[in-house]
Amino acid sequence: MFILGGTASNGIDIHLSRILGADLGKIETTKFPDGEIKVKVPEIADKRIVLVQSTYYPQEKNLFELLLAAHALKERDAEVTAVIPYLAYARQNKSFYPGEAVSINTVMDLLRSVGITSLMTVNPHKSGPLMNFKGKVGIVNVENTLASAVKRQFSNPVVLAPDLGGLDMAKNAASVMGCEYTYLDKLRDAYGNVSIKETHGGNLKDKDVIIFDDIISSGSTIELAARYAYSEGAVSVSAAGVHLIMVDGATERLKNAGVERIFGTNTVPYEKAEVVDISEDVADGIRRMSRDISI
Amino acid sequence: MFILGGTASNGIDIHLSRILGADLGKIETTKFPDGEIKVKVPEIADKRIVLVQSTYYPQEKNLFELLLAAHALKERDAEVTAVIPYLAYARQNKSFYPGEAVSINTVMDLLRSVGITSLMTVNPHKSGPLMNFKGKVGIVNVENTLASAVKRQFSNPVVLAPDLGGLDMAKNAASVMGCEYTYLDKLRDAYGNVSIKETHGGNLKDKDVIIFDDIISSGSTIELAARYAYSEGAVSVSAAGVHLIMVDGATERLKNAGVERIFGTNTVPYEKAEVVDISEDVADGIRRMSRDISI
Repeated sequence: MFILGGTASNGIDIHLSRILGADLGKIETTKFPDGEIKVKVPEIADKRIVLVQSTYYPQEKNLFELLLAAHALKERDAEVTAVIPYLAYARQNKSFYPGEAVSINTVMDLLRSVGITSLMTVNPHKSGPLMNFKGKVGIVNVENTLASAVKRQFSNPVVLAPDLGGLDMAKNAASVMGCEYTYLDKLRDAYGNVSIKETHGGNLKDKDVIIFDDIISSGSTIELAARYAYSEGAVSVSAAGVHLIMVDGATERLKNAGVERIFGTNTVPYEKAEVVDISEDVADGIRRMSRDISI
Repeated sequence: MFILGGTASNGIDIHLSRILGADLGKIETTKFPDGEIKVKVPEIADKRIVLVQSTYYPQEKNLFELLLAAHALKERDAEVTAVIPYLAYARQNKSFYPGEAVSINTVMDLLRSVGITSLMTVNPHKSGPLMNFKGKVGIVNVENTLASAVKRQFSNPVVLAPDLGGLDMAKNAASVMGCEYTYLDKLRDAYGNVSIKETHGGNLKDKDVIIFDDIISSGSTIELAARYAYSEGAVSVSAAGVHLIMVDGATERLKNAGVERIFGTNTVPYEKAEVVDISEDVADGIRRMSRDISI
């Protein structure tokens, strides 16, 4: 097995090489004055290649680098497993209105078309749509690793899911942390304004509330949940997200809502978070996958 | 036949609709705060769709919009012809060094993977590599249209190709303009510096020199040729390029070299040029192609 890292691997390639005892190489990517990139892959004797590239912003560029590299590896008869710690375009996983492109399906077809036969990612927004990939799929859930790191920081925590979709993750995190969990119902009115309906049996009073979510992007969901938690008597509110996309303004939004600490993972670079490395989980996933596909 | 334009069609979709008497629609593209795009295609009764999207900067984003739209159209059982007036990533058409990704091949595989069965483009840097597309390919050469527009502007012109690769285009342009042509040999020394060796029987003295090239990107090739032309006694120097990429600094570079006028086409938006619409040529190409594939 050979680990090949792209420019958006955020160090996970290096960790994987160390953990798995596999050789490491880098994609050489250069940029032309017109903005196009040129990609060069090294000569690798081992044809079982794990290509590591996350697809955070700029998503299309990072994705295209991965596609170019995989295509070049296919030309050299390699068997490519793509490890994409943050998989962009996974949130658009169905046509909410007729005619809408289901971008996750497009991305999976593109990956397959350049010869990627196995795909591994971390906490995709939904795992179901990934099953459409015409190859082997490995999904790595890291909320337990994230929760373990968070656990050591608080004496009186409670886990809060900001909406129903985050309930499973909150349950898992609370189990690891040995504490209670609850979740919020989001209500959207006719003008698109979001408010919160009620909690479900949880008690936030005098607690250190940890809001868990898979992706923190604009931060507006977390903001709403944090304000709610304080209104219910929380002592402190922190946020824990697997993928800290944190678009412009998100950091300020969380700060203004009183979010004291932000925990995240290294699937996406975000310097203001307390970051947990999830490479061990990915390595486990690769080992599991390799039992099936002789990686 | 139905013409469907993307956000980077630069008006060519509208012209094609008028010229071909075909209905016109637009891809609805919106951008999420994290930078991802969402694409929606209209409900179209006619399943023979000509999807128009150029892939100028930001190349990957414009390409991805095209891929998403084509994929959504495939889901609706459409037969998609992609008209890509400027085809990005076509210059990397072979491995200059082992392991280099041949990006044009990757792009063609991606286009095919989303169900595009016919591909049409304007003056690709080389046409040979396009023949690897696993579908129908239409190539539209517009140097004659460009030359016709330029011809009317000068009384004593001569066409200059800045290098041997541009000789065919220069020949065609000169034939349309009823004037002479010549070309320059570029020499690259051990330090990467480029100089010019000699001309080939052409006389630039007292002429209005028109430098023709397929792509003007950084402008450094044109700059060198312009300075040479003036040193040989040219009265004026202008530049004509099919695809005016014109990266940062290119406009100044040409101006500083004394290039008086810049002619181009609408495959790429560039407001400082005298622009020739090439939609008639593309429409002809579509008509030719439709004789074979029942568009």
